[in-house]
Amino acid sequence: MSARAQVPNGNNLFARRLGLDTHEELVAITRRDCPVCRSEGFSAHARVRLKNGRRSIIATLFQVESDWLGLHELGLSESAWDRLGVDEGGLVHISHPQPVASLSSVRGRVYGKRLDRAQMHATINDIAAGRYADVHLAMFLSSMAARDPDDDELTDMVQAMVDVGERLEWPREIIVDKHCVGGLPGNRTTPLVVSIVAANGLWMPKTSSRAITSPAGTADTVETMTRVDLDIATLRSVVEQQGGCMAWGGAMRLSPVDDTLIRVERLMDIDAEGQMIASVLSKKVAAGSTHLVLDVPVGETAKVRSQADAERLAARLEQIGRRFGMKVRVLVTDGSQPVGRGIGPALEARDVLAVLANAEDQPRDLRARAVLLAGALLELAGAVEPGQGAGVAEETLASGLARERFEAICRAQGGLREPPIAGETHDMPSAHRGVVTRFDNRRLAQVAKLAGAPGAPAAGVYVHARLGDSVEQGQPLYTIHAESRGELAYAREYAETNGIVVVGGAS
Amino acid sequence: MSARAQVPNGNNLFARRLGLDTHEELVAITRRDCPVCRSEGFSAHARVRLKNGRRSIIATLFQVESDWLGLHELGLSESAWDRLGVDEGGLVHISHPQPVASLSSVRGRVYGKRLDRAQMHATINDIAAGRYADVHLAMFLSSMAARDPDDDELTDMVQAMVDVGERLEWPREIIVDKHCVGGLPGNRTTPLVVSIVAANGLWMPKTSSRAITSPAGTADTVETMTRVDLDIATLRSVVEQQGGCMAWGGAMRLSPVDDTLIRVERLMDIDAEGQMIASVLSKKVAAGSTHLVLDVPVGETAKVRSQADAERLAARLEQIGRRFGMKVRVLVTDGSQPVGRGIGPALEARDVLAVLANAEDQPRDLRARAVLLAGALLELAGAVEPGQGAGVAEETLASGLARERFEAICRAQGGLREPPIAGETHDMPSAHRGVVTRFDNRRLAQVAKLAGAPGAPAAGVYVHARLGDSVEQGQPLYTIHAESRGELAYAREYAETNGIVVVGGAS
Repeated sequence: MSARAQVPNGNNLFARRLGLDTHEELVAITRRDCPVCRSEGFSAHARVRLKNGRRSIIATLFQVESDWLGLHELGLSESAWDRLGVDEGGLVHISHPQPVASLSSVRGRVYGKRLDRAQMHATINDIAAGRYADVHLAMFLSSMAARDPDDDELTDMVQAMVDVGERLEWPREIIVDKHCVGGLPGNRTTPLVVSIVAANGLWMPKTSSRAITSPAGTADTVETMTRVDLDIATLRSVVEQQGGCMAWGGAMRLSPVDDTLIRVERLMDIDAEGQMIASVLSKKVAAGSTHLVLDVPVGETAKVRSQADAERLAARLEQIGRRFGMKVRVLVTDGSQPVGRGIGPALEARDVLAVLANAEDQPRDLRARAVLLAGALLELAGAVEPGQGAGVAEETLASGLARERFEAICRAQGGLREPPIAGETHDMPSAHRGVVTRFDNRRLAQVAKLAGAPGAPAAGVYVHARLGDSVEQGQPLYTIHAESRGELAYAREYAETNGIVVVGGAS
Repeated sequence: MSARAQVPNGNNLFARRLGLDTHEELVAITRRDCPVCRSEGFSAHARVRLKNGRRSIIATLFQVESDWLGLHELGLSESAWDRLGVDEGGLVHISHPQPVASLSSVRGRVYGKRLDRAQMHATINDIAAGRYADVHLAMFLSSMAARDPDDDELTDMVQAMVDVGERLEWPREIIVDKHCVGGLPGNRTTPLVVSIVAANGLWMPKTSSRAITSPAGTADTVETMTRVDLDIATLRSVVEQQGGCMAWGGAMRLSPVDDTLIRVERLMDIDAEGQMIASVLSKKVAAGSTHLVLDVPVGETAKVRSQADAERLAARLEQIGRRFGMKVRVLVTDGSQPVGRGIGPALEARDVLAVLANAEDQPRDLRARAVLLAGALLELAGAVEPGQGAGVAEETLASGLARERFEAICRAQGGLREPPIAGETHDMPSAHRGVVTRFDNRRLAQVAKLAGAPGAPAAGVYVHARLGDSVEQGQPLYTIHAESRGELAYAREYAETNGIVVVGGAS
């Protein structure tokens, strides 16, 4: 307390770590009667610039009328504390932020004016530097959703997103990758595809996002089986040893702005086409990929709803990809029902493990999709003759080579572990006898999210019925898994008042 | 502390007032290891529903790892504390909020789908009930800015905004009002117009906003001379006594959603046409106005930049106004330079007082504008013959009747006071000899804001030069006023690096 009893010079305040978790939002708190704030004219909800040596951030200021904070103290959220890299009691300089110049071009974009290259780079730089408040990020994302970026804007955006982060370079000419344009619960092919193509000699340094608006992203699922927050050195050594990895991209600063944007998209619950393309390609360019296969599931309640939408998206991805020297092939797949049986991190992991083990009760649809994608990738990269890909992929699974490679990759990433099992479950029975005619994927995903996924890794939904199955009255259509009773009750209430799995008239 | 030592039942926590000023954002804080949060699966930045008896809100949750909060305590920001109306240590119920249904129509609107009547009412109701986080409000406002609402949407929005607030009714058939579509620094005609028309027997219950993105709103300016946060009973009695008032609308819950939206527009620094129309008309309909004159300044750096834009805006305002039985007349005025000499609450108030006093050095342009508007209002309401309005208005000022009425209104509102004077000033000299050829109104407003306006009422800019004036090198073009040295330095730095008053080549 001795340091804090003094009065600091100039616009400095003593840093105090509040242990306050605000997720990624940067928050600073001062006393309302703090002399620096009074002389600078800061009031609550002001944006302030905080500086510790060469590190600086812009944070949202809250003010307290209370003596739990000293007159010359600056309370910091965990996010602000980490970014400033300050020590307890260290001096932090506080000032008015300069008006963020790129925001005026973002405002222009809301009104319909495109961003030119310089404006796009300035915008992405400012976002990377933490100069945008959440409402500014929401404004930017809304403007991109309202008027889809054109090809030049998209190219500039991808380049800018790559430039502000790390970029991987590999001692090989061909680096393969895959991506699924979400919207289909349980479509967890990545760990299978990585294992298959790596076992066939290709290099696939796969980085994945966590869920945006879905109950599980690939990173969430893989994390129930091994470590995913690899640093670049570890990722590189895993790939050099095993030809593949399954890492969370966010831990590595590959297109770090993508993660910031995803956080706000999640709050807004939107996921626009242009943004999706920029997200995918920026990650892949930064990861050094040269050959990319995209899985685009199409269905009434999937993210992409029509063949025409899928084709437009495919064309744009292939075209923008080409500008970065990347060969992109898009596979339009069936998005009418969930893939596999599990929806939620651990439940999806169990499906993956069952396919790798060639288990009797494995989800055949998940296996078929993985074979399709891995086969396409083997062909696109020239590892096998055209037409041979699927056969080779299937054989790699059947022989156990894929499983071996999967386990080796997990060990290289820090160890193989068993996915957790939920403590609370509830079966959702069919109201009558009949045939399953329709799945509402969005609502099914909502049930899994209300049950706690992806935050609670064991939570989600395990689906028993498939389209076309005959079911008896009272037969469980799916089971809700949760880690807490509150969440189970929540998911159940929602599930009971919404028709999610439609069973047609008695047969 | 005895109550808090107990463990509350169910999902209840003990309320604790943190004295935390977050402006209007609703924030709640719990311990990360709080048992209710763990069982419900709440993590940082989650949205939570808080309930105290019949009052409920949705707040953003932050979490602490620290013992300054008890395990069963719920810390509340001042905004959340006020809205919940809870007592220290009282029980607050915490739960997952139901998904906010109207948000899905707002998302649809981002993608270009219009809101129908039911969706618009649901949206405005949810905003009024505090169910939207700031990013949701930013998404809604961006969608309205990106695709201007059509007439039906605007009508529904105005009606919904009126419905969720109070509505004034008057024992007179004709209630007049005026409004200026901002963008022109110093254009503070309202106190003059109210005084003139009230002195001529009309009723004008004027309510005004605070500044949105400008250095002073009418409410900010009037507040330097009298009280503006009147309750409805006081407002009514002031109008019944004096025929007019000058109140801050936000204190009265006339279209309260307007104030919420304005707060976020301010953070975003946008001010879209449709939103502006909804804002103006909802306030006027709620205030019971029947005859409205609108001042629309047009100029290169004003909010409305061309005659064509002004005419479109005028047509829309007149048309939507008609749907609410309101006669609207729009006056398109010169917006090429600031009005009066002061920019900032107290400095603008001094201009108003000089006009009322018929002072030698009064700003003639401000007087002329007030006469124009008051004259139009007198004619629109049928109080004088067509063509007589301006003459009557001028005579009301010249005779001192307007000043008398102004002072009587101020006394009725709680007393007349002298506007404050800034402690710090700095003259900005002309760099060379020449003729003043151009004002950048936006940058001039920015200087006033950096100097502290409107938060610091004495802060702002006092303009000496007018368009066409000959000036010598070193002659002050304007003076910056600030309440603190930090803000003065800030405004000065910005002013010195930006060409704000352009002085043409030596003459």
